[in-house]
Amino acid sequence: MRSFGADTRLPTLAVVLDIIRERGAVSRVELADATGLTQATMTHAVRKLTALGLVHEVGTAPANRGTPRRLIGIRADACYMVGVQLDQFAAVGVVVDLAGRVVVRHDMPGSGKRPIAEVVADLAGQVRSMLDEAAVPREKVLGLGLATYGPQDREAGVVITPHPTPEWLRYPLAETLAAATGLPVALENDATAAGLGVQTQGGSGSNFAVVFMSGGIGGGVILDGHPYRGVTSNGVELGHISVDALGEECPCGNRGCLDPIAGPRPVVERALENPALAARLGLGADTLTDFNLIGRAAREGNAEAAALIADSAQRLAIATVSLVNMFDVGRVVLAGHAFTESGPAYRDVLQVVLNRRVFMRHVHTVEVELAGDVAQATAVGGAAVVLRNLLESPNPELRTAVS
Amino acid sequence: MRSFGADTRLPTLAVVLDIIRERGAVSRVELADATGLTQATMTHAVRKLTALGLVHEVGTAPANRGTPRRLIGIRADACYMVGVQLDQFAAVGVVVDLAGRVVVRHDMPGSGKRPIAEVVADLAGQVRSMLDEAAVPREKVLGLGLATYGPQDREAGVVITPHPTPEWLRYPLAETLAAATGLPVALENDATAAGLGVQTQGGSGSNFAVVFMSGGIGGGVILDGHPYRGVTSNGVELGHISVDALGEECPCGNRGCLDPIAGPRPVVERALENPALAARLGLGADTLTDFNLIGRAAREGNAEAAALIADSAQRLAIATVSLVNMFDVGRVVLAGHAFTESGPAYRDVLQVVLNRRVFMRHVHTVEVELAGDVAQATAVGGAAVVLRNLLESPNPELRTAVS
Repeated sequence: MRSFGADTRLPTLAVVLDIIRERGAVSRVELADATGLTQATMTHAVRKLTALGLVHEVGTAPANRGTPRRLIGIRADACYMVGVQLDQFAAVGVVVDLAGRVVVRHDMPGSGKRPIAEVVADLAGQVRSMLDEAAVPREKVLGLGLATYGPQDREAGVVITPHPTPEWLRYPLAETLAAATGLPVALENDATAAGLGVQTQGGSGSNFAVVFMSGGIGGGVILDGHPYRGVTSNGVELGHISVDALGEECPCGNRGCLDPIAGPRPVVERALENPALAARLGLGADTLTDFNLIGRAAREGNAEAAALIADSAQRLAIATVSLVNMFDVGRVVLAGHAFTESGPAYRDVLQVVLNRRVFMRHVHTVEVELAGDVAQATAVGGAAVVLRNLLESPNPELRTAVS
Repeated sequence: MRSFGADTRLPTLAVVLDIIRERGAVSRVELADATGLTQATMTHAVRKLTALGLVHEVGTAPANRGTPRRLIGIRADACYMVGVQLDQFAAVGVVVDLAGRVVVRHDMPGSGKRPIAEVVADLAGQVRSMLDEAAVPREKVLGLGLATYGPQDREAGVVITPHPTPEWLRYPLAETLAAATGLPVALENDATAAGLGVQTQGGSGSNFAVVFMSGGIGGGVILDGHPYRGVTSNGVELGHISVDALGEECPCGNRGCLDPIAGPRPVVERALENPALAARLGLGADTLTDFNLIGRAAREGNAEAAALIADSAQRLAIATVSLVNMFDVGRVVLAGHAFTESGPAYRDVLQVVLNRRVFMRHVHTVEVELAGDVAQATAVGGAAVVLRNLLESPNPELRTAVS
């Protein structure tokens, strides 16, 4: 549980660094305007970021009067972060530089139901090989952000769920992966990470909700550039919003949850009930692969596949209306492997439904968009978490002095 | 829409004043500990609150070493705020002092479907008469907070809904009431106000959700002592969370919303379909009165009434699980006139259901409680909004110097 005071100390450094990264080169005056912070606070923040070696002066711009303004820019190669997104069906690893650019990316198999020790050892091997490919000095690698499903105890670095196998429940995931990679490991909710990844790569502003769909459905909310966390970072569980109050019991404990009614798994199950369809689409692999095959067939005009996707999209859209009615955001971004093929179809249904049904639609519009790279955003966000944790710590220091 | 920077300026004064009020008498060191703010920030905040005349030194306490600590306390009579909660079926007005004590309270009729001009004139008359009864100097009255349903444009001081009559849509509600009372008027969502009212009167901590039920169902979230606002303060619409994704269209635009399925109105409608029950309970007044009659009968052992309440409570409980799954809070507080009779029944059902069904229940518990005075909390919160708006303004000043 977070203490009363935890959130009254604002992560100023993270906010300021985000803006510098977004704008490329920016003066202190512009930074103060963009953040609402005082000049004094801004000067302090820029000084701290400079001392950390993360930003530097990149030139000057003419001012309306007086001396030219000095422009601050990011030092893209000051440090690097590793991000990994992992679920049962897919995993992606990235090495990201301070400018948010993906230096190396590996698409990897999901955990499946393999023993955790094997999963962690494989991940660690992939991380080592990504860092070799990136050819960045190891002392510049700040750490690894592991984005996965929940519920989870971020501080302890454990997931509190027996999925996909009972072994996962409270397994020392972050600790084991840290030992295997030699990097500090931070755990993060996958949908929240997707939001941070979208933000790192720009374009969706600083207030939006994430609808995340991979093996299952999740949600995240970014407000004023910060993840919504609640008291234990276990909120925004879009997949476990009840869409049928007296419906069937969900393994999560609730009744009539969205995920088991409209997520990839039930869509695939319905397709498999139609043997001719299943044969035509070549189904029979894992849930995510099958779901993407159905999505592709829908896109290519298969009416049965399209009906399955449309039904799922309608229900997801209504739950997304509830999400927006809860968090009052002006933008919804879709991310996750399950949108690889059917992203545009879901986006279009969600946009139509949100236009008609959102409670505050006469106050403001709500735009729906796809993440630039639906399969990569979450891993990039995992990397972003490493940097944010550092900058939000009471007295941030890089592991080693950055030259 | 709020700008990027709006929330990076923390409402320090409001936080500090809340803690001083809660604790009665507190040293600067305790305040710094309780808020996580630096000593320097705290000294600045206490100086500002002292200059505003809101707090003063109330004594000293022995320190572990060195000079005794000076204790800060609230000046309860420094200023007063008026709070009004209004909906179609009920209204409550209060005059509250700076210590959060209710000096005067008027229970008043709701708006019904009367012409707005008449509703506003009546409210203004009640406000004048409350201030006369309170016998406080008019220059010490900071303003009036009007807590009502939504959607609303808080800045413009208008509701954006044609309920209960089309005349309400974008009617200059705050402006007209301000002109009629001579007081600045702030508009607030009723459920959010209930949360602020509960907090003003202490006991529920600084992180909790509100389930509000009067003529309809609403929701609010208080996080680290601040209302969750989203981008336009129109979030946490619990009554318009869909509990039946493909269900009937709700007047709000969404499908299968909780309120028309489980709120006071459908409960009363179901009771009225049973003429014997309706006659026995003496139904036939307005929705809220009838609902409370059903609630009382249920409490007194009428099985048919109890079944109606139990069904509503089950559905509300599942939606509350969704609310908690969205916002990840550790406490749920019930407030609003509709809990007058059946509050304990709803509380008990919600507690059982939340214990079993909340997504993060293995991470932390979620406690359910009734507001100390379910009918009054919202009006008290309306009064609290006046003070918060003042303290959150860039350069707070009282309307007139406080002596």
